[in-house]
Amino acid sequence: MTDETDPDRRVADLGFARVDLDRAARTGDPEVVYAAGKTPEQVVAILARLHAQHPERAVLATRLTPEAEALVAAELPGVTVHAEARAVTLGPLPAPRGRVAVVAAGTSDGAVAAEAALSVRVHGAAVDRITDVGVAGVHRLLAVRDRLTDADCVVVVAGMEGALPSVVGGLVGVPLIAVPTSVGYGASFGGLAALLGMLNSCAPGVTVVNIDNGYGAGVAAARIARRARPRDDA
Amino acid sequence: MTDETDPDRRVADLGFARVDLDRAARTGDPEVVYAAGKTPEQVVAILARLHAQHPERAVLATRLTPEAEALVAAELPGVTVHAEARAVTLGPLPAPRGRVAVVAAGTSDGAVAAEAALSVRVHGAAVDRITDVGVAGVHRLLAVRDRLTDADCVVVVAGMEGALPSVVGGLVGVPLIAVPTSVGYGASFGGLAALLGMLNSCAPGVTVVNIDNGYGAGVAAARIARRARPRDDA
Amino acid sequence: MTDETDPDRRVADLGFARVDLDRAARTGDPEVVYAAGKTPEQVVAILARLHAQHPERAVLATRLTPEAEALVAAELPGVTVHAEARAVTLGPLPAPRGRVAVVAAGTSDGAVAAEAALSVRVHGAAVDRITDVGVAGVHRLLAVRDRLTDADCVVVVAGMEGALPSVVGGLVGVPLIAVPTSVGYGASFGGLAALLGMLNSCAPGVTVVNIDNGYGAGVAAARIARRARPRDDA
Amino acid sequence: MTDETDPDRRVADLGFARVDLDRAARTGDPEVVYAAGKTPEQVVAILARLHAQHPERAVLATRLTPEAEALVAAELPGVTVHAEARAVTLGPLPAPRGRVAVVAAGTSDGAVAAEAALSVRVHGAAVDRITDVGVAGVHRLLAVRDRLTDADCVVVVAGMEGALPSVVGGLVGVPLIAVPTSVGYGASFGGLAALLGMLNSCAPGVTVVNIDNGYGAGVAAARIARRARPRDDA
Amino acid sequence: MTDETDPDRRVADLGFARVDLDRAARTGDPEVVYAAGKTPEQVVAILARLHAQHPERAVLATRLTPEAEALVAAELPGVTVHAEARAVTLGPLPAPRGRVAVVAAGTSDGAVAAEAALSVRVHGAAVDRITDVGVAGVHRLLAVRDRLTDADCVVVVAGMEGALPSVVGGLVGVPLIAVPTSVGYGASFGGLAALLGMLNSCAPGVTVVNIDNGYGAGVAAARIARRARPRDDA
Amino acid sequence: MTDETDPDRRVADLGFARVDLDRAARTGDPEVVYAAGKTPEQVVAILARLHAQHPERAVLATRLTPEAEALVAAELPGVTVHAEARAVTLGPLPAPRGRVAVVAAGTSDGAVAAEAALSVRVHGAAVDRITDVGVAGVHRLLAVRDRLTDADCVVVVAGMEGALPSVVGGLVGVPLIAVPTSVGYGASFGGLAALLGMLNSCAPGVTVVNIDNGYGAGVAAARIARRARPRDDA
Amino acid sequence: MTDETDPDRRVADLGFARVDLDRAARTGDPEVVYAAGKTPEQVVAILARLHAQHPERAVLATRLTPEAEALVAAELPGVTVHAEARAVTLGPLPAPRGRVAVVAAGTSDGAVAAEAALSVRVHGAAVDRITDVGVAGVHRLLAVRDRLTDADCVVVVAGMEGALPSVVGGLVGVPLIAVPTSVGYGASFGGLAALLGMLNSCAPGVTVVNIDNGYGAGVAAARIARRARPRDDA
Amino acid sequence: MTDETDPDRRVADLGFARVDLDRAARTGDPEVVYAAGKTPEQVVAILARLHAQHPERAVLATRLTPEAEALVAAELPGVTVHAEARAVTLGPLPAPRGRVAVVAAGTSDGAVAAEAALSVRVHGAAVDRITDVGVAGVHRLLAVRDRLTDADCVVVVAGMEGALPSVVGGLVGVPLIAVPTSVGYGASFGGLAALLGMLNSCAPGVTVVNIDNGYGAGVAAARIARRARPRDDA
Repeated sequence: MTDETDPDRRVADLGFARVDLDRAARTGDPEVVYAAGKTPEQVVAILARLHAQHPERAVLATRLTPEAEALVAAELPGVTVHAEARAVTLGPLPAPRGRVAVVAAGTSDGAVAAEAALSVRVHGAAVDRITDVGVAGVHRLLAVRDRLTDADCVVVVAGMEGALPSVVGGLVGVPLIAVPTSVGYGASFGGLAALLGMLNSCAPGVTVVNIDNGYGAGVAAARIARRARPRDDA
Repeated sequence: MTDETDPDRRVADLGFARVDLDRAARTGDPEVVYAAGKTPEQVVAILARLHAQHPERAVLATRLTPEAEALVAAELPGVTVHAEARAVTLGPLPAPRGRVAVVAAGTSDGAVAAEAALSVRVHGAAVDRITDVGVAGVHRLLAVRDRLTDADCVVVVAGMEGALPSVVGGLVGVPLIAVPTSVGYGASFGGLAALLGMLNSCAPGVTVVNIDNGYGAGVAAARIARRARPRDDA
Repeated sequence: MTDETDPDRRVADLGFARVDLDRAARTGDPEVVYAAGKTPEQVVAILARLHAQHPERAVLATRLTPEAEALVAAELPGVTVHAEARAVTLGPLPAPRGRVAVVAAGTSDGAVAAEAALSVRVHGAAVDRITDVGVAGVHRLLAVRDRLTDADCVVVVAGMEGALPSVVGGLVGVPLIAVPTSVGYGASFGGLAALLGMLNSCAPGVTVVNIDNGYGAGVAAARIARRARPRDDA
Repeated sequence: MTDETDPDRRVADLGFARVDLDRAARTGDPEVVYAAGKTPEQVVAILARLHAQHPERAVLATRLTPEAEALVAAELPGVTVHAEARAVTLGPLPAPRGRVAVVAAGTSDGAVAAEAALSVRVHGAAVDRITDVGVAGVHRLLAVRDRLTDADCVVVVAGMEGALPSVVGGLVGVPLIAVPTSVGYGASFGGLAALLGMLNSCAPGVTVVNIDNGYGAGVAAARIARRARPRDDA
Repeated sequence: MTDETDPDRRVADLGFARVDLDRAARTGDPEVVYAAGKTPEQVVAILARLHAQHPERAVLATRLTPEAEALVAAELPGVTVHAEARAVTLGPLPAPRGRVAVVAAGTSDGAVAAEAALSVRVHGAAVDRITDVGVAGVHRLLAVRDRLTDADCVVVVAGMEGALPSVVGGLVGVPLIAVPTSVGYGASFGGLAALLGMLNSCAPGVTVVNIDNGYGAGVAAARIARRARPRDDA
Repeated sequence: MTDETDPDRRVADLGFARVDLDRAARTGDPEVVYAAGKTPEQVVAILARLHAQHPERAVLATRLTPEAEALVAAELPGVTVHAEARAVTLGPLPAPRGRVAVVAAGTSDGAVAAEAALSVRVHGAAVDRITDVGVAGVHRLLAVRDRLTDADCVVVVAGMEGALPSVVGGLVGVPLIAVPTSVGYGASFGGLAALLGMLNSCAPGVTVVNIDNGYGAGVAAARIARRARPRDDA
Repeated sequence: MTDETDPDRRVADLGFARVDLDRAARTGDPEVVYAAGKTPEQVVAILARLHAQHPERAVLATRLTPEAEALVAAELPGVTVHAEARAVTLGPLPAPRGRVAVVAAGTSDGAVAAEAALSVRVHGAAVDRITDVGVAGVHRLLAVRDRLTDADCVVVVAGMEGALPSVVGGLVGVPLIAVPTSVGYGASFGGLAALLGMLNSCAPGVTVVNIDNGYGAGVAAARIARRARPRDDA
Repeated sequence: MTDETDPDRRVADLGFARVDLDRAARTGDPEVVYAAGKTPEQVVAILARLHAQHPERAVLATRLTPEAEALVAAELPGVTVHAEARAVTLGPLPAPRGRVAVVAAGTSDGAVAAEAALSVRVHGAAVDRITDVGVAGVHRLLAVRDRLTDADCVVVVAGMEGALPSVVGGLVGVPLIAVPTSVGYGASFGGLAALLGMLNSCAPGVTVVNIDNGYGAGVAAARIARRARPRDDA
């Protein structure tokens, strides 16, 4: 069912979706399935098709419902379920190149941080996770300063007022990607407060992704880290 | 023209405004003129009337245009012009009781911080001003930690992402009032980003006033500080 | 599992959270667990750990789901359930110092007011609760004026248009913390109308916390009240 | 140039506008020119045309720039300039029937209140203006309670948090129209805070018009008052 | 349990609410229970208490859940259930005085229009309901023009773009109250589009209440209508 | 300076802009210069370059400042200034095919309607302008119903509540493009109210463009009209 | 039950709705039932009534709940269920005239695109559906360029950033209607991001409908296409 | 006046600002002066102080008013004025390492793109500027695809709907930073539409900075590029 007439882009048509089989060739990234809004059966079918095309590298699916996660686990032998990240992978992960520090402000930010960390790993970089270092306890942050400084890229995940990227950005000169989360209530307006806070960070060089978009931050961070020179080659 | 029929409240009717002459009796606070939206002549007239009624204590006028400031200085001998705060006072300041630390994140927050500091002083407390200790350089903040801890109340003034109150609130247990400022651009939306950040602070016990409302923060802080027990009486 | 290497901050690592064991030493406040977004099992574990560390003082958990409340009651003997406030405490409350008046505009604001009152009490001050004194019936408010005037701090809880703090703030000169609630519908936009109303209060010295944040108001109010001079020492 | 072919509606075409000459026949209201966005010359031309058509009754123009006001005064003998309301009238006012109380919270709300009062008068009712009775000084409001109770309709004009209609609406059962004004700064967002506050009023029966729309409130109030039974006919 | 010490206001304290027993004396309006956020048991208790105090006049409860409606029907003999309006009444309705036309744009606006109509009736005026006369079929509206013109007040209920009040307001000079509803999707933003449309109506004299607030519109309309002179007394 | 290497697209590089010389070949539309944000000199240069390339057809420039309009008139002989539309054309207009009715609600919407009408004409269709037929005077609209029905496309321009497209859309089945304008104040929020109203129109088939975007509506309408079958070919 | 007294408009009154029986005569469009907010029984009754009146042409119902879809299928023999579009039709579809290309950016936009396509077909034009040609893979779009160019109208359905209409609009000069969808999360704010993106499209001539409003786009597109000259008659 | 007591951070106190003299040591970045909100004299003083401290490397000042630019040029010999970027530099630029492509959608985005490009250069990377390649003319973008693919980082600057990053992000796998600009009108809401569009980009790995924040994007891009391995070392 592959459309071979397109010399530049091979596509598999599953009826409900046209699956891009050559994404890696263009961007160096693995295939990814965004499972939100898809039925468990659709998720299984797309994962199976992509894995069959390139069994030698990883396929990632994110934002799985519990139902989709269960069906994937039952139907696809060899799948790895990443429960905290609400994600699965199929196929071998690439050898890591470069390292990304993934920092989360609070316990509730864990799922987004886990999605970011897994996405980093699947896209080819190593991960150093640092948890629960909120801005209201700045000592905890200072204690991990070296791990931040040594990373090739830092992903900072925070909800509520989203202040952590500003503090981290004042400590280190490493590329920094901020992920606002929807953790909060009232005037957090579903993550808007954290998003605006990060966009207005007084620390230079902070870039931002969508609310709860751990995946996007992970992709960007991995692209940066895997192309970075080794630290002793600065 | 005073309305003496109200046993509880004496009011002077200036035609364009009814001036409350007994505010101090009810709340312990001085008379204050909010000069925005008033003509320079009106500001002068109200200040003169209030000062005549109570020459023994201070009257404060805030948000003066340069024109109003000039006319007040020319017409009212004995007035003190507080240029940075865009404010004037007339009459002797009260003896200070308690101390308020007024912390500003950046140079551009200076006018609001100055309004807050002056309001604290006029409402009866002493002031300790700390400037330019933004969250992106957390060392500068740690260096003044003792001055914060020793205050009876802390006012934190910040624009952009408004993260400073969270960091300060994580360091000290002193009552803390946050003032978002309209410093910023783009997605700061006139101070909205800082306001939301402060309202969602992960540090417990942070309270917030309107954007650029140094006056309101100063009043609240002075009320807290002037009634606080001395530190050695804890 | 305590990390003793940090001389200034002892932390217990529970795997899913790093629990700060020395918060009281820094801020004078008790340990608090924000239960929203945590499983009942996690809430129980954190409460137990904190209580074991400091059995001589109170631990507070807020925003419990009914499931968490039930599990806590079953697993932790000696816990006190505060149903209206959706909160629990474990360990003896501190002796109260100073008094906070907690005023609620309507019946529906009860849960937030109860959370504020409990937080005040746990953080070391006494509480005077005043209920159902909405701004549309100003006589009810005038009837309790003396109780407001005698308090060391007033917390005013209101939804809908959030006008009550302005009226209270016009009557008394006591430090006043306003809590907007999400009570309302349509153009209340989940409490935004009340929040904006309170931030724009024409009464000077009103400070504001996040929508439905009774806890935050309680912490701030207790800090103010417990350090206030006795009234006859003014 | 009147279009006589429309039996129900006669219209004068001035080139830049088609002027409705029979509005009064349909609605009982006078002709009104909204001058914002029109040149002074256009305002003069429309006023002259409408006055020529119906010299026996009043024409009202609102929102005049100083330039338009000056040209109208110079070109149209017999015009009355209402400076505070930024409006002019031409032709005799109708005999008043019924009475509207127009209450303003602060000095800065004066222009909107004046526009409301003039609109009431031009649309056929009498006016009782009450100024400077803000919600933070509720005694001033209680002092005028009888004047409010005796009116056939009450218009309440307020900026900032817009709380005054709630308090007035709790005191009297008279039809009440609330006018939010753009007076304020920061989180007043150009009058949005007052608008939302009034829409969410806890006092039943409060209706609201657009921000700064004194004219609309005046029209609605006059329609109510001029058709009300005399008080002794209740 | 009535608090007789307040000479001006008698209040019954039910523990969970303080019930105002003399509202009618102040405003001429009946007692009303806003049932949203109250348990069925609380609604029954308050209705019973208010009815016992004044069995000779009606008590209204609005926004009942199906559960509350069922319990009220089972526990309170003599109650009348108004299913479309999601409301109940207890006690005899007052004799109507004046007439209010309640116009709804579409079928989906029926519940809000029914609440408005019932509120009008309970507050002492007669009702003329006109349904399904949306602005996209202006002929249907012209067909009922006489019924609109003859009313003492018109309530216009509409969702989506909320344009109907502008068209009605161009046809008649009767006092007009617009009720935006949350009917719509997407960029209606829960009724915001209709609310803004009505506030910006180009027809003069349109006043507006909160989204879905049929009750508030009914109260305001009844106050206007019941005090209006008979039509032949114009 | 033309880049002839691109076989499909010839582009002239003016240094400050790369001018697309073959737009007409791709889309059938003329060249257009959006003058906002450009200096008068830049506008003149781009117009001259485009006209030199295709002297046989029209070039349109919109949103000219008075300064740009003056310089264009002085520098480019043969230019036609369309003052109401704040636009100029250079070169012969195409023969019209099909007809677009451009309807404006009020006098203040004139500039946007004029821009729409000119854009229609330059893009190849005839225009029938209908002015000042607001929704609050529905008779004026019914009087022009035949002109609307006979058009191949209708453009409806309105500010404030933006209700006119709903009424027009209920009268005719012609393709209808709605243009919200920024005419209004207060809760019109710069045209947002009209925009939301039009997007939520209860009349089926209404499409909408950006606030004040007469140009975009004109382009879309001309594309529809110039390809429509003649009316007698239905 | 038909109201025959209206010579211009025949209406069937079903008690809960007044059904317009002559819509086609006025606009050339079929009858349509918007099922959201209606009970399954009401949907069946209205469909049956409309079909009985005009059995020779199609009736369309959109936004059916699964319950309504099931009841309609059980009660109305001859109905066609369009599952992806969540819609049903009853009666023969009209012969198509002209062709509309309906382009969807992603799999998740399928339901809205299906509603648009069905609406086009029911309103009398042919449909060419093109799926899954998102802007992040522009090659897929270029591959279908001819199908876009040959259409009489293009409907572009996209969520998230809503960029597809800009790219399509840069490729072709065909009338283009953009439909933002609520597909997305976080800062998509329920489709607001896509809506704003489409309204601000830099491609001229893009018009927009409400979020998820496939029906409205389909009606507008069919009106354009069915009146377009055949392509060889350009 | 340098504070030598802080071993880790040397600060120069200019009275109106505390200038951080060791930023480069911590982050590897040059000193930067954000000139908005500062007087021309202050800008000159800070630039002079920073340059004196480190004459061997560049100091950058952004957002200069014309007045500040003139004074800087007059007072500081050796300064370089970058007019399009509204910025100045003092001291030698660093040797570039790595390369950043800075892509702008339209002519009006030029100032922001120039600020980004200059910031990249000052922070140590080379720049490849690509202008006027908007999404509505996708051929122009495809023509520069190789330059994008060869860069170590891509900065994409766009206003209006902000769609360009999505299209670029679909073509290349290079780290991509999107800069929304305030170019647009109406529903662009000062750049909000572009900001939301970029945050919701369907292309993975797009990160975003504040509206008009060319500086921030430049800093982030330079940090990425200067640490990237050479292309032939992939």
